[in-house]
Amino acid sequence: MRILIIGATGTLGRAVTALFADHHEVLRAGRNSGELKVDAKDPSSVQAMFEQAGPLDAVVMTAGGVHVGPLGEMTPAQVQLGLGDKLMGQVNVVLAGQRYLRDGGSFTLTSGIVAQQPIRQGVAMMTTNRAIEGFVQSAACELPRGQRINVVSPSVLTESWEGYGPYFAGFEPVSAARAALAYQRSVEGVENGQIYRVW
Amino acid sequence: MRILIIGATGTLGRAVTALFADHHEVLRAGRNSGELKVDAKDPSSVQAMFEQAGPLDAVVMTAGGVHVGPLGEMTPAQVQLGLGDKLMGQVNVVLAGQRYLRDGGSFTLTSGIVAQQPIRQGVAMMTTNRAIEGFVQSAACELPRGQRINVVSPSVLTESWEGYGPYFAGFEPVSAARAALAYQRSVEGVENGQIYRVW
Repeated sequence: MRILIIGATGTLGRAVTALFADHHEVLRAGRNSGELKVDAKDPSSVQAMFEQAGPLDAVVMTAGGVHVGPLGEMTPAQVQLGLGDKLMGQVNVVLAGQRYLRDGGSFTLTSGIVAQQPIRQGVAMMTTNRAIEGFVQSAACELPRGQRINVVSPSVLTESWEGYGPYFAGFEPVSAARAALAYQRSVEGVENGQIYRVW
Repeated sequence: MRILIIGATGTLGRAVTALFADHHEVLRAGRNSGELKVDAKDPSSVQAMFEQAGPLDAVVMTAGGVHVGPLGEMTPAQVQLGLGDKLMGQVNVVLAGQRYLRDGGSFTLTSGIVAQQPIRQGVAMMTTNRAIEGFVQSAACELPRGQRINVVSPSVLTESWEGYGPYFAGFEPVSAARAALAYQRSVEGVENGQIYRVW
């Protein structure tokens, strides 16, 4: 398959890229690195990326930021940060990509355990991740030409434990390599509209 | 109790207002009607509303629009419409309101059956409604001074069936009066972080 990975240089993106690179043709996209440059927040940049990419069998997204902070001090702009970046970045890719992806191709998005399991200072994260899962489960019913869409929801990554561990007391971290398997299941499998929880 | 209802003149808002007005002091807020004028999309308008409202025991939100249309023609702006209006309108009210609501007071927000059950042309609706439920379930863990927050998820309303029925083939509509009971459970009950599904 010909697979585009957006966010390929992040912790998760590197593991997904490593897993796919053995058996597939992988194209890497990112804001500052990779064969293709893209700012997923900007629909025209996403459009240009697809024009450059050529035919694709799968698009994997492992990029997107979100605000972490206490509810008592949270501003509307801080909530909107994750909506504009992690949510709309992925939405922009699907809205544009449905016209470019080959028949039967797949999109695989990323949410996170905080979609279902609250953590301290995680209000914007849960809001954003839950929206991503809702988008995936409804888009799965309307994508054209046999295209599929799924979302991977990893726990906090072992590799990110040093920075994020204090927010995830008592949670079991998972390695990026293990989380990457869920992306493989989505891309090489048959399911549509699924949430792959790696926790 | 002293209860503020935002969106009090909508179909649902009228039923909720009618239910509470017998036993409580009800303040109505809306864009164009009610004792208090508010554009919930605008944080400064929300702030001004709370300054005017005085002490409150409960805030109920039954307002907010979202785009309905096919995924194949959907634009990023159409997805953002519901995020900016139905989601951020309610988020703005909670972020500001947590400083004004009395100890032990409650917020009751509104999502909808399409948070869980996809309908044709409902991608933006499911994205928005799911985000609202995520916001509520995480905010419930961090609200100060014993404040509570819940969300009511009604099916399509009997009163709206003529306009929305075609999108909800096979769904059972519920009357606004029955949906209003869930708001009463939230406001007069003891639970926190709950989704009251009226379907």
